Amino acid sequence: MPPECLTLLTDYGLDAGFVGILHAVALRIAPALPVIDLDHSVPRHDVRLGALRLERSMRYVPVGVHVAVVDPGVGGDRRAVAVEAGGRLFVGPDNGLLTWAVEACGGAERCVALGVERYWLPARTGTFDGRDVFVPVAAHLGLGTDLAELGDALDPATLVGLTRPLERPLGDGSVELEVLQVDGFGNVQLSGDATTVARLGLRRGDPVELLAGARSVGASFGATFGDVGAGEAVLLLDSDTALALSVNRGRADLVLGSGPGATVVLRAVPELH
Amino acid sequence: MPPECLTLLTDYGLDAGFVGILHAVALRIAPALPVIDLDHSVPRHDVRLGALRLERSMRYVPVGVHVAVVDPGVGGDRRAVAVEAGGRLFVGPDNGLLTWAVEACGGAERCVALGVERYWLPARTGTFDGRDVFVPVAAHLGLGTDLAELGDALDPATLVGLTRPLERPLGDGSVELEVLQVDGFGNVQLSGDATTVARLGLRRGDPVELLAGARSVGASFGATFGDVGAGEAVLLLDSDTALALSVNRGRADLVLGSGPGATVVLRAVPELH
Amino acid sequence: MPPECLTLLTDYGLDAGFVGILHAVALRIAPALPVIDLDHSVPRHDVRLGALRLERSMRYVPVGVHVAVVDPGVGGDRRAVAVEAGGRLFVGPDNGLLTWAVEACGGAERCVALGVERYWLPARTGTFDGRDVFVPVAAHLGLGTDLAELGDALDPATLVGLTRPLERPLGDGSVELEVLQVDGFGNVQLSGDATTVARLGLRRGDPVELLAGARSVGASFGATFGDVGAGEAVLLLDSDTALALSVNRGRADLVLGSGPGATVVLRAVPELH
Repeated sequence: MPPECLTLLTDYGLDAGFVGILHAVALRIAPALPVIDLDHSVPRHDVRLGALRLERSMRYVPVGVHVAVVDPGVGGDRRAVAVEAGGRLFVGPDNGLLTWAVEACGGAERCVALGVERYWLPARTGTFDGRDVFVPVAAHLGLGTDLAELGDALDPATLVGLTRPLERPLGDGSVELEVLQVDGFGNVQLSGDATTVARLGLRRGDPVELLAGARSVGASFGATFGDVGAGEAVLLLDSDTALALSVNRGRADLVLGSGPGATVVLRAVPELH
Repeated sequence: MPPECLTLLTDYGLDAGFVGILHAVALRIAPALPVIDLDHSVPRHDVRLGALRLERSMRYVPVGVHVAVVDPGVGGDRRAVAVEAGGRLFVGPDNGLLTWAVEACGGAERCVALGVERYWLPARTGTFDGRDVFVPVAAHLGLGTDLAELGDALDPATLVGLTRPLERPLGDGSVELEVLQVDGFGNVQLSGDATTVARLGLRRGDPVELLAGARSVGASFGATFGDVGAGEAVLLLDSDTALALSVNRGRADLVLGSGPGATVVLRAVPELH
Repeated sequence: MPPECLTLLTDYGLDAGFVGILHAVALRIAPALPVIDLDHSVPRHDVRLGALRLERSMRYVPVGVHVAVVDPGVGGDRRAVAVEAGGRLFVGPDNGLLTWAVEACGGAERCVALGVERYWLPARTGTFDGRDVFVPVAAHLGLGTDLAELGDALDPATLVGLTRPLERPLGDGSVELEVLQVDGFGNVQLSGDATTVARLGLRRGDPVELLAGARSVGASFGATFGDVGAGEAVLLLDSDTALALSVNRGRADLVLGSGPGATVVLRAVPELH
């Protein structure tokens, strides 16, 4: 089945014209292939968050060629790779960025180190592989070029991996978690998920407590923002099915006072009798 | 006539990957339907400004399926609706957001409460109806699904309405207006329009005064920025045919010192003889 | 050969819905023509930087109709023009914005002053020519309308020009340059290029010094970020083949402490023996 789209996920931002050039390059090589800007707002050089967002997008994105570029090592000796998994094709730096998405699609079936320069732009500058290498290669894959033509085969076991976000049960029944990201509404996404909920035995309406540094935030476990009153905090499984702290019609990030990378402790609050 | 496009207007911003996922979902269901990002910069939860921008876009946008999501009540008991008006189809929360656009298209002809889950994504998370409900429904409408298949018919008279922006003539010949929005160039859009201009009897070149709190700003009524010298203020009917205060090659927002929601008083300055 | 795409480069930003309306207008007139958002992040009213980015994009963008709008004089008496060069069509204000791109494509072959209103939107508001004039005209060009139908022919020699960025050799072997722009990663692009490198006789690994006001920054001349250690500064030819100061996995803008428009002096550091 030919790829239905070419998707782009980068940390380029939309403030320097980088993304427009990627579209130009893709259109020139594969004019009929739809291009989706999956996300260009990955925090700069945050490979782990890029990997997480790419992985999570897989359940929504049509089968296609998926370019991801969060690439602090561009121009250095990190490999550039293309990976086939579950009928999808991934293209990007071999720094862990593709790992979780590839796993989510069933693991790497084939993998090459990009090396055949006739699929690149004529002049690789060494600082913009998204434009010079990854998108051209992806557009050629979109046209039907076989993965094997792009470079030497790699053992998928040699692909760089990443450490999963922290989710650590503590002795006292609480769980240590990591703040993963904060969205524009102030919702604070944590590294827990339905497993954490089961571990703590939480049911809708149960009171919970989050300890973030010296601060303690009380919340109810719920299913959506409106399960609590305006201005009140709710812990829920968000649209990524990740645990998140939200404030109904307010900003949870201001209440919690901790940002990405911070560690928090979550515990169920025993009810008094 | 089948819809020519699917348009998106949200308060999601471009900083969290939400918009890319909407495109992915739309492409998966209706790959041939062009998707237009009408606007993702509506201030968070500002239903009224979202409604205004949606309404104003109607004179430029091809006939299509128009998704709008500014939805502080997501997950609560507000209805999700689809509305037909003037050959167009609108999809979004029933919180007033669609109201003015629907009126601008001649009023609701048909209306349903979205309820038939097979047109949604399989798992509705309760916090991201744009992805889980609105865009899937809109994409199906784009494929030719009839409105009536999506849920129970609603009496259009029961749709939630909104209060129009303030435009109130005062006894002394002045008019009280509201600051609607400030664009990236610093232009300050007010709630008046050509009616206000007629009410005040303004002609090109006439001096006017704006009172904003303790501040008074003098300007000329004009047709474009260049009607005044660089750094000078001009009151004009802007590209939305709304009254706006601008400073030629400068920023009117800094001069006026008032932002969205503030009340200002506009009056014609009598010429001295 | 008919245009393969319509590209947009503006200083509109993505925060007010202007860009979405341009897409709507283009789709309505020329529904089959792909539209590329080349760049909407040109700093407001910065004609020179807009001109530079447009010029540099030409080597990547398919042959098409290229709209550019950085237009502080909108509504005034500056001309609106369309220019043919090297098979491409450029549309925008006659304020220098199109100049360098046109030159890069071999110079203007034909040129008209936009004047035939039936190719515009019905009501030109005087403050949003991108929507009312430039994109409609470009979409009609994309449909095959000949340039000559859009208005009176102009002598290309009368098009407004721009002064090239500063690159001035000083008596002592150093070169005076201008900071052109800073990207989201903090890379500082300068007005020099390979000519400057040749002038200074720089080879990979050579030490250089940049003087910016009272500050002096030492760097190595290199080919990519990884040529220096993490946190160290490297002077390189960037992805625009322009001289740029970068810090490997850091921000050069913070090290240099100078922004767009500032003058810096670059010199090779003689090696001690």
